[in-house]
Formats: sequence, structure tokens, C-alpha cells
Amino acid sequence: MSVRDGLVFLSDTRTNAGVDHVSTFRKMTVFEQPGERVLVVLAAGNLALTQSVIQLLTEPAGAGQQTMWTAPNVYEAARVIGEAVREVHKLHSHALQDFGVEFNCSFLLGGQIHGQAMRLFQIYAAGNFIEASTINPYFQIGEAKYGKPIIDRVLTPDTPLAEAEKCALISMDSTLRSNVSVGLPLDLLVYERDSLRVTRFTQLDNDNAYFQMIHNTWGARLRQVFAEIPEPDWSPVGALPATARRPAMPPRATLPPGFDGAAPTADAPLQILAQEP
Amino acid sequence: MSVRDGLVFLSDTRTNAGVDHVSTFRKMTVFEQPGERVLVVLAAGNLALTQSVIQLLTEPAGAGQQTMWTAPNVYEAARVIGEAVREVHKLHSHALQDFGVEFNCSFLLGGQIHGQAMRLFQIYAAGNFIEASTINPYFQIGEAKYGKPIIDRVLTPDTPLAEAEKCALISMDSTLRSNVSVGLPLDLLVYERDSLRVTRFTQLDNDNAYFQMIHNTWGARLRQVFAEIPEPDWSPVGALPATARRPAMPPRATLPPGFDGAAPTADAPLQILAQEP
Repeated sequence: MSVRDGLVFLSDTRTNAGVDHVSTFRKMTVFEQPGERVLVVLAAGNLALTQSVIQLLTEPAGAGQQTMWTAPNVYEAARVIGEAVREVHKLHSHALQDFGVEFNCSFLLGGQIHGQAMRLFQIYAAGNFIEASTINPYFQIGEAKYGKPIIDRVLTPDTPLAEAEKCALISMDSTLRSNVSVGLPLDLLVYERDSLRVTRFTQLDNDNAYFQMIHNTWGARLRQVFAEIPEPDWSPVGALPATARRPAMPPRATLPPGFDGAAPTADAPLQILAQEP
Repeated sequence: MSVRDGLVFLSDTRTNAGVDHVSTFRKMTVFEQPGERVLVVLAAGNLALTQSVIQLLTEPAGAGQQTMWTAPNVYEAARVIGEAVREVHKLHSHALQDFGVEFNCSFLLGGQIHGQAMRLFQIYAAGNFIEASTINPYFQIGEAKYGKPIIDRVLTPDTPLAEAEKCALISMDSTLRSNVSVGLPLDLLVYERDSLRVTRFTQLDNDNAYFQMIHNTWGARLRQVFAEIPEPDWSPVGALPATARRPAMPPRATLPPGFDGAAPTADAPLQILAQEP
């Protein structure tokens, strides 16, 4: 997440190669030169591929080539990662294809270099990349969908940094609840704008009191809000709250003229097949 | 959703074949013989495939073959749908393969036949199928992930029917918010156990007051609950609420001994690369 006051990075540590091979691996790597640059890389996808990419990033580059340490700006650092992805593609994609395994990896890169603005990028498996903006101030990779709705509802570029952290943790809690391929512990790194060093990093596990509080409180309060919202009322005369009225029932005597796939309108009856053809 | 008092079916109407081809189609079909059977079919996937399957279901079957009207129980009706899927696979899968299009369709079937229990099935593209249970009392097909967390948090087989309806609508509202491939209007059918007829069906659009209320109230209350949960506190001495404490920072002077992919433990430092290799 990229907000006015900083960047929030959150990753889980669950990997799997089928349910027989569930393991715990870090998905966050930090390139820090205090006072000069902080670049944080998150990885998702095939672990063998993402590890190869990270390995390339930590090795000295060839003469004249940029590295994460020499890239003059975050955009160039994203390009360095994109090139590493393409290098790994060259090494492994054909062999993977022989086994019907998709070349599947993606990365997030965020950070700041001295004298420049914070930036946040998402790098695709093809090595191309996009940047976050004030309209889309966050990226997710991996199991993204479960946790997206709460972020969409609360995150804006003006969200205070601590609220963004809370939002990220609530989002991850929803994902943990609904998908076993995501698991504790979590790595949380919060970058404070213009600090140019890692000031806030922690690993969160079941025994972390704050995450436990989020986990318990959010679920309980959600159920409470759910209980407070009135149920739909199907009585013919709509009582308050305004009801989901029962419409006139479609004709039942005859079979409608085939399934024609016509767009439903307010009047179009549901296709109810009331008699055996 | 399958709860003690009935079944809840909810489908959107958005289809797309790329963003240039977004259309509105019904995804719900009902086979009703009042007093004898109600069978509701929901479809997801390639529209040409799902329409072909529904077409087969509405046509008279060959001699000796079961149909949705003659299946002696809901399990047999699921088998009928599975056979129709396999028939359509025979007709179209090779041609689709030539164009690199996946054979992608899935169905939900729920209902009741006189003298028997309500049942709910999910039918896969291969024509095989599974049944819902008290441990897993609901199925989703299509864009399932966004709306799953709220269902996981509130739905049990003992949830009252009206609450299950509310839950389905809130779940769909989250999906609508996060994914443009899902769109209004919605078809909502609520089957009351042992009624053996369609008593509650409605189409919900933006102008439906109940759905509007859900849409506005849920989002607002969620943001309120979010605001009420305390933010994490990074101060060294943990104040209440219990804080996500900043751990001892990993060593910075030297490069850690390569990216070894070791499982993180409570002590294992995050890989922070503090110096250029």
C-alpha cells in the first residue's frame, strides 16, 4: 500500500506444491542502505522461480549493469527486477513447459531513494511492470481476491499510515480465514516516508497480541454488524425496511419458447419451466 | 446456500467475452412442478457452453433417459446435468481447443423432490459433482473469492433462512464492489423447505430499496467498525492495546550468507541486505 505518509508491505509465509508439500518461506526481501535507499521486494508464484529471481538480485551485476544498489531511481530498480525475471525465464521456461508447469511469478517493489519520492511497482512474469497511483494506491499479488473488498472500501492515498497497516492486517486476516494456501507467520514492514531506513518491521504469529485482537475483534464486530442489518421482508405489503418485493410470478402453464438467452428486463420473467416438455 | 429451513440461490447477470463484449444474461433456470419438484440451476463459465447445457436440459430426452422432470431424486438430476455437460464437451471441446479456449463451465443444482430432503450440488466441467454438507453448507461458482470471507464468518446450517439471504446479498455486494465482471441486476430465489414451489423470487437492481440499504449500510458500518479498532502502536514500550512490537533489528554490517530460503523462525532475521555485495 502506498499512502501519503509511507508504504505498508505485508506478506504471509505459506508455500505449497500441492497439499502434500506445504512449507514456510519468507516472501519479503529488503535492500537497505540507511540514509540512501530502502527497497522492499515481495514475491508470489512458483517458489523456485521467485527464489531464482531474488538470487539474481543479490548477486553482483555484470559490468555496466544496474543493480538494486546502483539503480538511480525506483523505476530503474523495477526494470532490474523485470530483467532478472526475463533471465530466469530464459533459464527455466522451456523445462517447465515440458512438465506443463506455468511460468508463474510476480513481484511488488516499493521504496524510496534519497532525494526522490516513494514509489510502488508491480512486476509481472513477463518482466513488464506498472506503478501504483493515487487512484489505485495498492497492489496485491498471490491470493489477492479474498482480501480485496475491505481494502477497496477503506484505503485512499490520504489514509494515515497506521490505518493502512490495520487495513492490511484485516485484509490478510480475511484471506487467512478463507484459504489454507495462505498462512502465518506474517512479515509486516512499514516504511515511513523520507526515513530512508527500516524503522518498523515485525513478524506476526498467533502469539502476537495485536494481530490476535484484530483477528478476534474484526470477526466478532462483523457478525454483530451483520446481525444488526434487518433481514429482507417478503410480505406482500412492504413493511419498513423497504422490502425485496415479490414480483408477479411468471406464467406457469406453458413452457416458455426455449432458452433464448434474452437479456432480462424488469418485466422479463425468470425462465421457470413449469411443465415437462 | 443450504440451511435447515431452505435454500438460497443468488446470481448476477454480467457476462463478458473481453471488456469489449460485456452483456447481461440470466444465469438462473428453474424447473418447477408445483407440489412435486423444484430444481434450480445456476451456471458459470463460458456462456456458449452453459447455454448449450441448459438447452439440452430443456429438451426431451431420448427413450429411457432421465430428465430434470423425471429424475427420481436430486442426485439423479445432478447426474443428468453432468451428462449434458459431457455431451456439450463432445460437441465443442475440440473446436474450442483449436482456438486455445478452455472448456470452462460449472453449475449449481439445488432443490427438492416430493417426499425427499432438500439437496445442493456443484457440477464441474468434467460432469462430475459434489454435494454440500453441514460442514460446507454453501457453494459458489464463478467469481467466488471476493465474497467468500463474509459467508465463512456467518453461515452455518442453522442460520435462519432470512439471515442466509442477507448474507448472500452482502457477499455479492462485496464482489460487485471489487470486480467489474460481476454486475446487476441480481436474481434471488429463496426456496422454503417442503414448499415444493417457487414462493420467493425477485430481481434486484439499483432501484431495489433493500439491496440499496444493504449496499450503503454494510459499507458504512464496516468503515465504522474499522475506525473503532485501535491502530497498531510501534512505541518501544507497548501501550495498550498490546502492540506489534518492533523486534531486534537483524545485523546490517554484512550481507547474510546468501538467500538460502530457510524457514523463518521467531529468531531468524528478515533478510535485510544492508550492503552492496
